[in-house]
Amino acid sequence: MSLDDVTYTRGMGRWEPDASGRLREAALDLYVERGYERTTVAEIADRAGLTARTFFRYFADKREVLFAGSADLQEGLVSALAGAPAAASPMDAVAVALDAAAAWLGGRHAYSRRRYAVIAANAELRERELIKLASLASALADGLRRRGVPDPQAGLAAETGIAVLRVAFAEWRDEAVERPLAEVMRASLADLTTLTAAAAG
Amino acid sequence: MSLDDVTYTRGMGRWEPDASGRLREAALDLYVERGYERTTVAEIADRAGLTARTFFRYFADKREVLFAGSADLQEGLVSALAGAPAAASPMDAVAVALDAAAAWLGGRHAYSRRRYAVIAANAELRERELIKLASLASALADGLRRRGVPDPQAGLAAETGIAVLRVAFAEWRDEAVERPLAEVMRASLADLTTLTAAAAG
Repeated sequence: MSLDDVTYTRGMGRWEPDASGRLREAALDLYVERGYERTTVAEIADRAGLTARTFFRYFADKREVLFAGSADLQEGLVSALAGAPAAASPMDAVAVALDAAAAWLGGRHAYSRRRYAVIAANAELRERELIKLASLASALADGLRRRGVPDPQAGLAAETGIAVLRVAFAEWRDEAVERPLAEVMRASLADLTTLTAAAAG
Repeated sequence: MSLDDVTYTRGMGRWEPDASGRLREAALDLYVERGYERTTVAEIADRAGLTARTFFRYFADKREVLFAGSADLQEGLVSALAGAPAAASPMDAVAVALDAAAAWLGGRHAYSRRRYAVIAANAELRERELIKLASLASALADGLRRRGVPDPQAGLAAETGIAVLRVAFAEWRDEAVERPLAEVMRASLADLTTLTAAAAG
């Protein structure tokens, strides 16, 4: 490749096939290898065979590479909730939303495990994860209100749904033998029903 | 008061009756009046009639004034859980812990409303609140495991318990006419049982 080619590639913003996916993989590789704190955007771009300029076309900073797609996940959850049958109970509608989340999150087992190891090792990233989950719960509660579920039931069903998502996702992620995430989530919802039914109230 | 008195007061660290409570009230007053960001530790101490040095004897920084006592709350929750009857179901044990939380949190309605207004207005404080709640959930899950509750039920009951605490506390806090917080929490737990029972699973 001549210098002209490089100039052309960088200067014209040539389309790179799956640049976003390559940057995400490169970032995670580097975070696992040398730690999140010690990795720079320039190094991530370099590992992906791209430029820092391309990096910033997709991500605001090196933290957001790990949270890319959480807006899509939230949108997916909320539209699945809206699409649940009108007669569905609040928790059944939440279960439909969790199925959509499982379809979205459940395809990348190895990636999820490696991503979690990076996040667990860094306080700032753990906080960011909590914020994203709180935002999911809040969007789910709003969606339930739009379905006519009153408060406090809407908030309660949403917070509970996200609790199930967290616990089931962690269980799925930490199992050596991968099960379908949707199955783990459904089992977790059933566990919750059993747990609450066994409460004297 | 002479300069000697002041020197004596500051230099010898004279005991101040309820210095911690006075600092907390002064801090909240100032945060409500002029905003969290624009308030300094010196101003808080001054409003409380104390010195900055006394402030730092009680709190690490101006943020922690708002979260003082969360370690006590966590300890209270965990020991209530440990003290629940051995035969209690996981959610009944969580209900006992929530009663303890209600006793601890439920006595300061006006304070809670004002504190929430300050926290809601600041992203850093909202994050801090999420972290404290995640820490409560994690401590509760550990306590359930010590009671012999296996995973994933321990994590699920704990996360669900904290979801109930959040929703019930917010409901209680936002009601103009104060009800006993323990009553709101029990009603919220009963709502949860109804919600999950109505799920097809």
